Amino acid sequence: MKISIERAVLLKAVAQAQSVVERRNTIPILANVLIEASEGSVTLRATDLDIEVLDRAPAMVEQAGATTVSAVLLHDIIRKLPDGALIELVDDSRTGRLQVSAGRSNFSLATLPKEDFPVMASSEYSANFAAPAKVLRRLFDKAKFAISTEETRYYLNGVYMHVADSEGGRVLRCVATDGHRLARIDAPLPAGAENMHGVIVPRKTVGELRKLLEDDDMEIAVSVSETKVRFATPDMTLTSKVIDGTFPDYSRVIPTQNTKRLEVDASEFSKAVDRVATVSSERSRAVKLALEDDRLVLSVNAPDSGAAEEELIVAYSDERLEIGFNAKYLLEIASQVDRENAVFMFNTSGDPTLMREGNDTSAVYVVMPMRV
Amino acid sequence: MKISIERAVLLKAVAQAQSVVERRNTIPILANVLIEASEGSVTLRATDLDIEVLDRAPAMVEQAGATTVSAVLLHDIIRKLPDGALIELVDDSRTGRLQVSAGRSNFSLATLPKEDFPVMASSEYSANFAAPAKVLRRLFDKAKFAISTEETRYYLNGVYMHVADSEGGRVLRCVATDGHRLARIDAPLPAGAENMHGVIVPRKTVGELRKLLEDDDMEIAVSVSETKVRFATPDMTLTSKVIDGTFPDYSRVIPTQNTKRLEVDASEFSKAVDRVATVSSERSRAVKLALEDDRLVLSVNAPDSGAAEEELIVAYSDERLEIGFNAKYLLEIASQVDRENAVFMFNTSGDPTLMREGNDTSAVYVVMPMRV
Repeated sequence: MKISIERAVLLKAVAQAQSVVERRNTIPILANVLIEASEGSVTLRATDLDIEVLDRAPAMVEQAGATTVSAVLLHDIIRKLPDGALIELVDDSRTGRLQVSAGRSNFSLATLPKEDFPVMASSEYSANFAAPAKVLRRLFDKAKFAISTEETRYYLNGVYMHVADSEGGRVLRCVATDGHRLARIDAPLPAGAENMHGVIVPRKTVGELRKLLEDDDMEIAVSVSETKVRFATPDMTLTSKVIDGTFPDYSRVIPTQNTKRLEVDASEFSKAVDRVATVSSERSRAVKLALEDDRLVLSVNAPDSGAAEEELIVAYSDERLEIGFNAKYLLEIASQVDRENAVFMFNTSGDPTLMREGNDTSAVYVVMPMRV
Repeated sequence: MKISIERAVLLKAVAQAQSVVERRNTIPILANVLIEASEGSVTLRATDLDIEVLDRAPAMVEQAGATTVSAVLLHDIIRKLPDGALIELVDDSRTGRLQVSAGRSNFSLATLPKEDFPVMASSEYSANFAAPAKVLRRLFDKAKFAISTEETRYYLNGVYMHVADSEGGRVLRCVATDGHRLARIDAPLPAGAENMHGVIVPRKTVGELRKLLEDDDMEIAVSVSETKVRFATPDMTLTSKVIDGTFPDYSRVIPTQNTKRLEVDASEFSKAVDRVATVSSERSRAVKLALEDDRLVLSVNAPDSGAAEEELIVAYSDERLEIGFNAKYLLEIASQVDRENAVFMFNTSGDPTLMREGNDTSAVYVVMPMRV
């Protein structure tokens, strides 16, 4: 292998590769990136055995070939080379080293045989569709904060992407929950997704996927099978196993009978919650909401350190209500609101509360109350 | 106590106080800040028993008085209140709480009796002088990277500030070393400092002191006794115990017979060292410098991961030399160079090397070589 490639192009590809690589590996080759050069382009492939990412980049290929080197080391080197540098990669099969040179810098990196690199088995995908990056970004970004981190409930350690029936017809839906709060985000159903198998996309995959979704207008090709999901742009392919489990029936926890309606400026609400929560101890960050006659009083009482109270002018005309929540959950949910006011729908102080942005039901959040 | 104070003014004072407070305290009152209000001003005092910081701030004092509250909690609250807010502090001796209010936010914080707050005993200072913030900043900023973190060599855990004889006469000098490298920084001797007792200013004090030195033209009043040092501006006083130990005779480790002279662009040198060091293992970050005929070849050989080499055009006309250094030490020393080229003076590959900025001997650095 002998290729020349622009620093910026290689850096983008190798950055994605090193991000997928796990920092602690018992299998040495999993720390490496597979570099394959063929006519006019180079591909970089990295995997943790659950996720595989493949980047294609244009390169001047003088001699085709393939090898593997440490992804983290290669990334560090490319990152530190000067902007605008032209980088030469030469695989010396005699010494088993990859020569990396640019200007007066020369590196000689240990390699492992390309044959040992585990390439993810290809799959038969039962559904293939395209969706704009912007749409997928909204679906995953607004859902991911609710992903559970409890490893014993592994089936909640991801975002459940599936086809669902909503009031307006069938939709592509992402749901995440940790049992304390839930996010349910809908988007118009793309053509070809109708028969998609519902899949639980793991947390790490959701994080890696985010990097494919920066460009608003990019169309992302999505492929789904029972065991795998793939997201692809012309330059990048992210393939991931999905979580082998059954996502619980979330529909029964979404309240439909909540009638007490609070409308509040999400930003003012967040700041006030954050302020009153300051006095509470780290563990039980319970904030009490007292609602009556267009007034919301937020309060926290922490016997050890003190008490805090703040009043907000809101829209609320139902009967007096007192209800408590974990401050962190309220802050995370309120931060999902982009444009309009936050609308909370309450039932009693013991029932799950629903939150949405204005009257938009394409993104709804549920949060369980706390006793205060 | 009943006072009103601008948020920005209070925030600055309480930020300094909470920074001195140790996060884990066995003595509860050490987590608190002592607030004392008297005519037209409020003082905030915090201590960790080794350092005491006192901030004065203008305030509208309706009723004088004093109390103590958690420094971290008060800082968090003030920080989260809106910019421009007018904050009212009211000490309610009946409930033992401090009321903090601004706009529609109200906090009630647990207090501890002001009588229990440990106020540092005042000292007789044997030397008092004034120095511009800019001068002190240079003395400490350029020395502090070399402070030792080895607790057993406690006498190296600070910057040794003392009066010394240099070629150009007597100077105010700061020295720090960890045995591997040394920094020696001189400034003109301020009037009144002539008889100053040499003191070892602890690392934490050096960090806190930095905040008093932001304003170039501010005159800092410095007072020194055998056991304490004090730095003061009109608004802030930082008093600190000094390290009770003897700073070693550093003069004998500063080479005077080194004749091989390398002059190199410090920024280019740093970038090249950083790049070649990428391939070395974390522990022994040894970089080899090979010098001959205006050429510097930097190289690293790490059997496990690979090798790296980079050539720089430099000014060097002495005999061929190969010498190894810890990459981290080279980077830290080179980063002290602001304006001119870095000048290294070598003897043999086993001797300490001297580095300075151009021909300026008011800041010199010594670094021990490594076998490579």
